[in-house]
Amino acid sequence: MFPALLLLAAMAQPNSAVDAARAWHGAHQQQILDEFFELLRIPNAGPERLRDNANFIRTMLEKRGVSARLLEMDGVPPAVYGELRTPGARRTIAFYAHYDGQAVRPAEWKTPPFEPTIRDGRVWARSASDDKTPIIALVAALDAMRAANLRPAANIKFFFEGEEEGGSPHLEQVANNYKDLLAADLWLICDGPVHQTGRQQIAFGARGIQTARITVYGPNHDLHSGHYGNWAPNPAMMLAHLLASMKDDNGRVLVNGFYDGIEPLSASEKAAVAGAPDTEALLKKEFALGRTEGGGRPLVELLNLPSLNVRGLASGSTGAAARTVVPSTATAEIDMRLVKGIEPDAAFARLVAHIRRQGFYVVDREPDAATLTTHPKVALVVAPEPGYRASRTSMDLEISQQVIRAVEAARGTVVKLPTMGGSAPLWIFTDLLKTPTITIPIANYDNNQHAANENLRLENLWQGIETMAALLAM
Amino acid sequence: MFPALLLLAAMAQPNSAVDAARAWHGAHQQQILDEFFELLRIPNAGPERLRDNANFIRTMLEKRGVSARLLEMDGVPPAVYGELRTPGARRTIAFYAHYDGQAVRPAEWKTPPFEPTIRDGRVWARSASDDKTPIIALVAALDAMRAANLRPAANIKFFFEGEEEGGSPHLEQVANNYKDLLAADLWLICDGPVHQTGRQQIAFGARGIQTARITVYGPNHDLHSGHYGNWAPNPAMMLAHLLASMKDDNGRVLVNGFYDGIEPLSASEKAAVAGAPDTEALLKKEFALGRTEGGGRPLVELLNLPSLNVRGLASGSTGAAARTVVPSTATAEIDMRLVKGIEPDAAFARLVAHIRRQGFYVVDREPDAATLTTHPKVALVVAPEPGYRASRTSMDLEISQQVIRAVEAARGTVVKLPTMGGSAPLWIFTDLLKTPTITIPIANYDNNQHAANENLRLENLWQGIETMAALLAM
Repeated sequence: MFPALLLLAAMAQPNSAVDAARAWHGAHQQQILDEFFELLRIPNAGPERLRDNANFIRTMLEKRGVSARLLEMDGVPPAVYGELRTPGARRTIAFYAHYDGQAVRPAEWKTPPFEPTIRDGRVWARSASDDKTPIIALVAALDAMRAANLRPAANIKFFFEGEEEGGSPHLEQVANNYKDLLAADLWLICDGPVHQTGRQQIAFGARGIQTARITVYGPNHDLHSGHYGNWAPNPAMMLAHLLASMKDDNGRVLVNGFYDGIEPLSASEKAAVAGAPDTEALLKKEFALGRTEGGGRPLVELLNLPSLNVRGLASGSTGAAARTVVPSTATAEIDMRLVKGIEPDAAFARLVAHIRRQGFYVVDREPDAATLTTHPKVALVVAPEPGYRASRTSMDLEISQQVIRAVEAARGTVVKLPTMGGSAPLWIFTDLLKTPTITIPIANYDNNQHAANENLRLENLWQGIETMAALLAM
Repeated sequence: MFPALLLLAAMAQPNSAVDAARAWHGAHQQQILDEFFELLRIPNAGPERLRDNANFIRTMLEKRGVSARLLEMDGVPPAVYGELRTPGARRTIAFYAHYDGQAVRPAEWKTPPFEPTIRDGRVWARSASDDKTPIIALVAALDAMRAANLRPAANIKFFFEGEEEGGSPHLEQVANNYKDLLAADLWLICDGPVHQTGRQQIAFGARGIQTARITVYGPNHDLHSGHYGNWAPNPAMMLAHLLASMKDDNGRVLVNGFYDGIEPLSASEKAAVAGAPDTEALLKKEFALGRTEGGGRPLVELLNLPSLNVRGLASGSTGAAARTVVPSTATAEIDMRLVKGIEPDAAFARLVAHIRRQGFYVVDREPDAATLTTHPKVALVVAPEPGYRASRTSMDLEISQQVIRAVEAARGTVVKLPTMGGSAPLWIFTDLLKTPTITIPIANYDNNQHAANENLRLENLWQGIETMAALLAM
C-alpha cells in the first residue's frame, strides 16, 4: 500500500532530496518543532508511557502514507514498524531508531525533562537527541520529498524500538519472530552523536559490551577499625589491589588475553581512522583532562580496541556518613567494550581467570561462612546484564560507498569510523539478519546523552532532515 | 558537698565493695535496667537530644548525692561533671565515660535503636555498650555501696562528655578551661569492650587517629564509557592504583616513614602482650576470615603498630543504579591509627608525600579547570576530622598496680594491654592534665559498636557494676 501520489512522483536522487529537505525545513520550522515537541512531551523513561510513544509514532508514519503497525511481544514495549513500497524498487533500505529514553532525575534538570524548551539554539528534553531526533527527521524528510513531488528509489522500512536504553533485551527475539518484515539490503542505524568537530560521521560498526560486578569480602560484618583494622583483611584495599592489577598506569589492560583475537582493520578502515579529524586538544580542554590513557594514541584509534572501565565503586561509607570501620565488602562495577573477534563470554571468562590468578576463589553467588573461612580471598563475580558481541560492516562494499556518497550530498565530506565507541547490539542486523548495517547519527556530541539536561542543537535537526532525505533517496 | 550518710559509713575496700555490688545487682536487676532503659531511650545520635541526655545523667548523679553540674561551652554538648568528696581522702580518682552515640540507620536494626529491647541475654540499643554502660554501672555501684554502708576511700570525680563519637573536638579546650575541676591522681576511662575471651582487660593507652579523604579526578563530568572510556582517565582506576601503592598484599603499609619513630614497648608491656590469650582462631571463625593481615602476627601484637584502613570508597554508581560512564571523581576515606611516637600531623604529611610520589598534584581544596588540565593527576586530600596523638601510661607505676589489683578483686586475672586498638584522645589526660590514665572497659567484644544492632550482654553489665564498685573503693 502506498499513496497514489507517489506513483506520479519523480524518483529522487540524493541531491534533489537534500534540496527539497532544505526548502521544506526552511519554510516549516515551527510545524516541524510542534510535532517534535508533541513527541517529546510523552514521557519515555519508564514502562508505563512507552506504548503511548509507540502509538503516537505509528500515527506520525501513517500521516505520511507509511503502512505502519506495532510489533507486539508479551511484556515488551511494542516496536513501531512501517513500510513504504516503491514500484520497481530494486532494493530495500531499513531505518532503525529508538523511542525510549534513559531514566531522569528531574531535580538535576534546568527545565523539566518532558517539557521541551528552546534555549541557546537547542531543544532541551529527554530524548531530544537520544533518540527521537531521527524519527522527526525522517517524517519531515518524507514531507519534504512529497512536497517536491519526489519519491524514494528503494523500498523503505522503519523500525523504531522501545528497549534500547535497557540494552535491547528482546531485539534478537523480535528479529527472529519478524525475520521477513525486517529483511532489507541495508540497515541504517540512526542513533548517536555526530563528530565532535560538528562534521557528519558515519560508523560502520558498534562495539559489543560485557558488564561484570565484582564483590570482594572482608569480615562478615563491618568491624571497628581500631580494634580489628590491619588484622582483619580490608575488602576495599583488596579490591584496590585487584583493580590495579587489571590495568597499567597508562590504561593498558593487563588481563591475560584481553586483546587476543581482535579482527584487524582493513586498509580502508585504517585509512579512515588515520584521516579522522584531530580532536584531542578540543576534548581535553572540554573535559578538563591533564592527560589521556592509551600511550598518546588518539581517541579515534582507541575506539577500535576493547576497553575495561570501572563505572562504579562502593565500600563502607564516604563523606559525612563515613564511619571508622573495616567494611565487610567492596564492590566494583566494570564494563568492557568489545570489538570484532572478542565474544562477550570470552571477555567475561578472561576477567574471571584474571581474578583467580590474583589469588581469589571466585564464586557466582553470595558465599557462605564455610567458603569465606576456607579461602584467603573470595570474590563474587556476576554479569548484571547479558552481554553481546561487536559488529562491523566493510566500508568497501558498494552499498557502503553509496551511503557515503548520499550523506556527503547532504553534509559534505564525512568522517568515517570503522566502529563507534558506544555499544549497540548491531550484530542482530549484521549476523542474524545478515545485512550490511551503517550508523548515521544526527545529534550534537555535547548533547548530555543519558544525563540531565539532554539537548539537541536545532542546527543538527535541520541538517538531520537533509541527511535523512538523502538516504531516503538512495 | 556530700551526704551525711557517707560520713558514718565504713571506708570500702575493693573486696567488700565487690561483695556489696554483687548483692545489690542480684536483688535490683529490674530497677537497674529500668533506669538504664530510660537513659537509652533518649536519642544521642544527633546534636538536638544530647542536652537531654546530659540533664538526665546529671539527675542520675544527684540522686546518689553526687554534686553535679554541666560544663558548658558555646555550641558544644555539655559535659556532665560530678564530685563525691571523701573526708580525709589522700587522692582523687576520676571516671570518664561518654553519653553520645554513633549515627544510626534504623532500617538496618532488628529493633529500633532508641527502644531498648532484651533478647538473647543482651540489651539491644544504640549506646547500650558504647558508652552508656559505665554510667549506669557507676551509679548502681554507688547505690550498692550506700546500701552496704560503704564509702569510697578517695575523692571521686565523674566526667561524662557528649562529643566522643565526633572525636572529642572540644575536650582539649574543656580540659584547659576546667583544669582545676579535672585535676586528679588517676583517670579511669570507662569505654570499649573487654577481651574477646570474656576476660576483663585493662588498657594502659589508646591509639591516636588521623583521618584523610582522598578524591582523585577524571573528566569534569561523567562521560559515556563507550565514547570516551580508556581514553579519558578513569578516577576509580587511578584511586585503585593509588590505594594499592599504600599497602602490600600482607597488610604492611608502604607509605614512606609510616612506622618511623614508634616508641618501643617496655619489658612489662612486651610481657603483657606475649601473655595475652590467643584469640586468633576464635576471631577468624567469628568474622568468617580466611586469612589475616600482618604476616601471621596476632592481633594483640598488631595493635601496638600504626594502621592504615580504607573505611570507605565511592565512585560512579553500583548495583541497579550503575550507569556505563567514566565517573568524574573517586573518593577514598582513610583512617590511620597512631601509636606513641607518631604525631597526627606527621602521619598526614607522610600520606600526602606518598600520594605526591605516585605522581599526583595534591590540592587542599576543590581543583579548578586550570589545575586539572595542567596536571596529569590531581588529588584533593583533606582531613575530615582533626587528628590526635596516642597516649600510654606505664603499667609499672604503683597506681597502675593498684588498679590491676582492684579490678582483679572483682574479675580475677585480667588481660593487660599496653594500648587498646581503638582511638581516644587520652593524651588530654596524660599529657595536658599530666595524670596516669587507664582504660577499664565493660562491654562484650561482640557488641556491634558503631554499627547497627549494638548490644550489651547483661552479664557484662552485672560484672561492670562489680568492677566499678572495686574501683570506687580503691
